[in-house]
Amino acid sequence: MYIKNPYEIEKKSFEIITKELGDKTFSEDVGKVIKRIIHTTADFEYADITVIKEGALDRAKAAIKNGTNIITDTKMAMAGINKRKLSEYGGQVFNYVADEDVAQEAKKKGITRSIVAMRKAIKENPNGIFVIGNAPTALFELVKQIKEGKAIPSLVVGVPVGFVGAAESKEELLKLDVPYIVTRGRKGGSTVAAAIINAILYML
Amino acid sequence: MYIKNPYEIEKKSFEIITKELGDKTFSEDVGKVIKRIIHTTADFEYADITVIKEGALDRAKAAIKNGTNIITDTKMAMAGINKRKLSEYGGQVFNYVADEDVAQEAKKKGITRSIVAMRKAIKENPNGIFVIGNAPTALFELVKQIKEGKAIPSLVVGVPVGFVGAAESKEELLKLDVPYIVTRGRKGGSTVAAAIINAILYML
Repeated sequence: MYIKNPYEIEKKSFEIITKELGDKTFSEDVGKVIKRIIHTTADFEYADITVIKEGALDRAKAAIKNGTNIITDTKMAMAGINKRKLSEYGGQVFNYVADEDVAQEAKKKGITRSIVAMRKAIKENPNGIFVIGNAPTALFELVKQIKEGKAIPSLVVGVPVGFVGAAESKEELLKLDVPYIVTRGRKGGSTVAAAIINAILYML
Repeated sequence: MYIKNPYEIEKKSFEIITKELGDKTFSEDVGKVIKRIIHTTADFEYADITVIKEGALDRAKAAIKNGTNIITDTKMAMAGINKRKLSEYGGQVFNYVADEDVAQEAKKKGITRSIVAMRKAIKENPNGIFVIGNAPTALFELVKQIKEGKAIPSLVVGVPVGFVGAAESKEELLKLDVPYIVTRGRKGGSTVAAAIINAILYML
């Protein structure tokens, strides 16, 4: 015998998470983001490494309500975002990493497809919501273009995962005065990225 | 300045993982699976909680070479699997969770779409490779049908994540004499599930 009702499962999950967080409390919206990350990873370390720029959640909510598009660095993050909910406000999710022109350009230059896809994304949506769950190279490129004034994001979800450049790319983002959500250090990922966006969508 | 070449990034990542694993060593194929999970999560706990049934990797490799189909419990896991590589051997990835008939049946019965989607998947591919990265209810249903002799999987990747049923569903799977890969306890997820399948694909 086990719980088969999806609403009961989610309710019980968040009760357990809240209980196990114990003394750690957050403002309402920040708590919603952090709990949904823990819900998707079963990893309480995210309560300590998640950094949300002041005002970023309000700015992101307003942007979504305005129909702002979301750009992800992977198909996985794209797949995980609740696109039905997003489309209620007119926004769409884009990912260019599998585009033929991106693949060719990356191969020619010997750089990641993530960098080339990010360049394409910024050209098409300089004020978009940028969601990076996997590729540090995509986040480094975005940081560079923010500094140059070419990208003015409504939100940067900077949660690439890994051992080469992930932590460093997030520290670069933290230096900027833009609305961001970051998981410091090596941890993150496409499921974390999607969970953050969905947490914001469910606040609306 | 940062590394922009995708092959260098992956090579360096696996070197760091191998170094930090230190004394923990594994047989060649098992090591490849565990290192790819850590690569995708930056979480070394997976070295301790990943359990691979003896012979499961050889069986899975043979199944993939034979064109066996893969069924996932989420669109995210589906998105993360290297489908181009899989298709070289004739296999495809299926996921039924967003099907209209699945949604209707689940709503009518007040159970998760994951359960209904799993029932549909077993009917269509009783000998498939089942990849469960998210929903304990999908894994409970699969375990039930394995016991009833209705599902005879070529491999079960049982890595659902979460607080309600995830750990318990994996313990049920561990009791069965089927080829499985499990991450004990609460941890797992769609990225972990996809990483396991890709690790096997890259062995071929």
